[in-house]
Amino acid sequence: MTHPENDPAYEGLTVNEGVEKLPSVNPYFKPKARRKILSSQEFVDGILAGDISILGQAVTLVESNLPSDQKIAQEVIEKCLPYSGKSIRIGITGVPGAGKSTFIEALGMDITNNGHKLAVLAIDPSSERSKGSILGDKTRMQELSSAKNAFIRPSPSAGSLGGVARKTRETIVLCEAAGFDTIFIETVGVGQSETAAQSMVDFFLLLQVTGTGDELQGIKRGIMEMADGIAINKADGNNIEKAKVAKQQFQNALMLFPPHQSGWVPQTLTCSATEKTGINEVWKMMQDYVAFTKKNGYFDQKRTQQAKYWMYETIHEQLLNSFYQNKEIERRLPQYEHLVLNNEITSFVAAQQLLQQYFNNIK
Amino acid sequence: MTHPENDPAYEGLTVNEGVEKLPSVNPYFKPKARRKILSSQEFVDGILAGDISILGQAVTLVESNLPSDQKIAQEVIEKCLPYSGKSIRIGITGVPGAGKSTFIEALGMDITNNGHKLAVLAIDPSSERSKGSILGDKTRMQELSSAKNAFIRPSPSAGSLGGVARKTRETIVLCEAAGFDTIFIETVGVGQSETAAQSMVDFFLLLQVTGTGDELQGIKRGIMEMADGIAINKADGNNIEKAKVAKQQFQNALMLFPPHQSGWVPQTLTCSATEKTGINEVWKMMQDYVAFTKKNGYFDQKRTQQAKYWMYETIHEQLLNSFYQNKEIERRLPQYEHLVLNNEITSFVAAQQLLQQYFNNIK
Repeated sequence: MTHPENDPAYEGLTVNEGVEKLPSVNPYFKPKARRKILSSQEFVDGILAGDISILGQAVTLVESNLPSDQKIAQEVIEKCLPYSGKSIRIGITGVPGAGKSTFIEALGMDITNNGHKLAVLAIDPSSERSKGSILGDKTRMQELSSAKNAFIRPSPSAGSLGGVARKTRETIVLCEAAGFDTIFIETVGVGQSETAAQSMVDFFLLLQVTGTGDELQGIKRGIMEMADGIAINKADGNNIEKAKVAKQQFQNALMLFPPHQSGWVPQTLTCSATEKTGINEVWKMMQDYVAFTKKNGYFDQKRTQQAKYWMYETIHEQLLNSFYQNKEIERRLPQYEHLVLNNEITSFVAAQQLLQQYFNNIK
Repeated sequence: MTHPENDPAYEGLTVNEGVEKLPSVNPYFKPKARRKILSSQEFVDGILAGDISILGQAVTLVESNLPSDQKIAQEVIEKCLPYSGKSIRIGITGVPGAGKSTFIEALGMDITNNGHKLAVLAIDPSSERSKGSILGDKTRMQELSSAKNAFIRPSPSAGSLGGVARKTRETIVLCEAAGFDTIFIETVGVGQSETAAQSMVDFFLLLQVTGTGDELQGIKRGIMEMADGIAINKADGNNIEKAKVAKQQFQNALMLFPPHQSGWVPQTLTCSATEKTGINEVWKMMQDYVAFTKKNGYFDQKRTQQAKYWMYETIHEQLLNSFYQNKEIERRLPQYEHLVLNNEITSFVAAQQLLQQYFNNIK
């Protein structure tokens, strides 16, 4: 039997099509599906033609940690780069219970019904799933995941937030090259993911809910100040009055913060994702923001800042890793922590001595 | 003429006393005052005895950038370390116009009149003075700077915020060893200084004023969330009602933030530094905070976190400096920025190539 890799009968098939075609010579034999049947140029051609299946396979390569996959992924990304950038990137965060999946589906359907192509990505670096919500969960967004012009992916898993953020940015490049003009980046709102998301989106939306005083307090420090808009969800039924009160509270709080660099004044809206009210107003707010910041130049300025930020962020991450993964440093770090905590040496002297050992060690 | 350094007639004198004693052999000749007449042990003995003049000279050594001064300074600091830590460290920030100097003087007099020894330090790394207010300006705090148990110093100048922060921390060690049980760290509220200050104090106070909507917005992002207490100053005359309204606004805003790790609920008070009303209540709030956090263990936990933080912060700063000051990197960085901004390579690839060149270059 000729190996599928060399058999012209399998040429041009996707991985899944190829696997299905294999004859059942041995019912227990399932050859490992080889994902590298396409060349990097074939991936690029498929992506630029808007082929969702090929886009999905390319994203799988990007998410993979295998060096061979990464090699092809980087080639694909580089070739797609000139076609990237032409989209609106929107970050959406909210605590578990805010109704994020329902909201994203309602907003997403509104957007795709208006002729746009929407990609929904997620940043969630924790090895175990965040409490309660699973980001990018298609089972919770069934209508949207079946929509022709929507593409939904769960978060890559890459060990560190830096790794997840990088793969998400690379996925954005591929989606934009495939013609997706609106990108959602979803985060959970209880970790560092929001800072990463904020550094790769144009507009940052905070999804809130009403309830008791405690529920209002679920947000991590700094997120409210990051928001370009706040949407108070579940403004329906008995909750409508509470939602209006919450809207006023947030508007008052936002007034106490310094102005945003963009010049935009963050808005607070109420909506109900289940009843699909107030959803179009949220989309309109985002479009207004984009028009406003494109007009005053801030839109492009922010994208420039972000591109530079990620280069430096990657450099810093690797410089620190090189230090902390150094065997001598790994060994001595706890000893120095101990000396500092016991007031035996200053943190400055401890740092100096450790650095000296590091630089002597890597030469 | 025997040089003062070798002349027993000058032994044990302070720098200023020695200079005054010199005969006027040449009225135009002013020998450069040499600050190293004391040994490090003499400095330590003077500090432990609570000698303010010697403390002042030691702090001058700490602030100096001369290697010879730094050598002695580090010896003095190391010997004082075991005697440090026994104080309450309070960060005070507010925008220019909040009345910081008047407030610090009023609060400081209240504290020293209650039997405490107070040191007032400042963090202001800008090479030009911050707009309007000069931190640690004794001319604005004349009563306090004459008080027997008060010690006021302007910010060290050290080029970088990291350098200023380090010298401030080292100065805290000396002040505590000299018996100062209360330390103020003053910052302006418009730069990165607050994060540095927050990482070296126990309690962080935000000083606000009332006025138009705009004036309320002078605070840098993130500072309101950092505050353990807010004091609304200038609650006097026609301003009293406005101050009460502002107090309510801030209390409402604070309720929207997640709880502090300390378990403490930040309080908002009104006061008038010029009329000296509400000042003792601010001091009482700080004492309540200390009692509360000592009881639940957070006080010591935070100090431990801070000590470790500064060791790692110093390490990171030097790792980055080593990269950015590398000649090859200096040369190539702008080229790579350009490639990234033109979408010719990803920020990730740019970072990888720069790092490769750096590590090849330092071996």
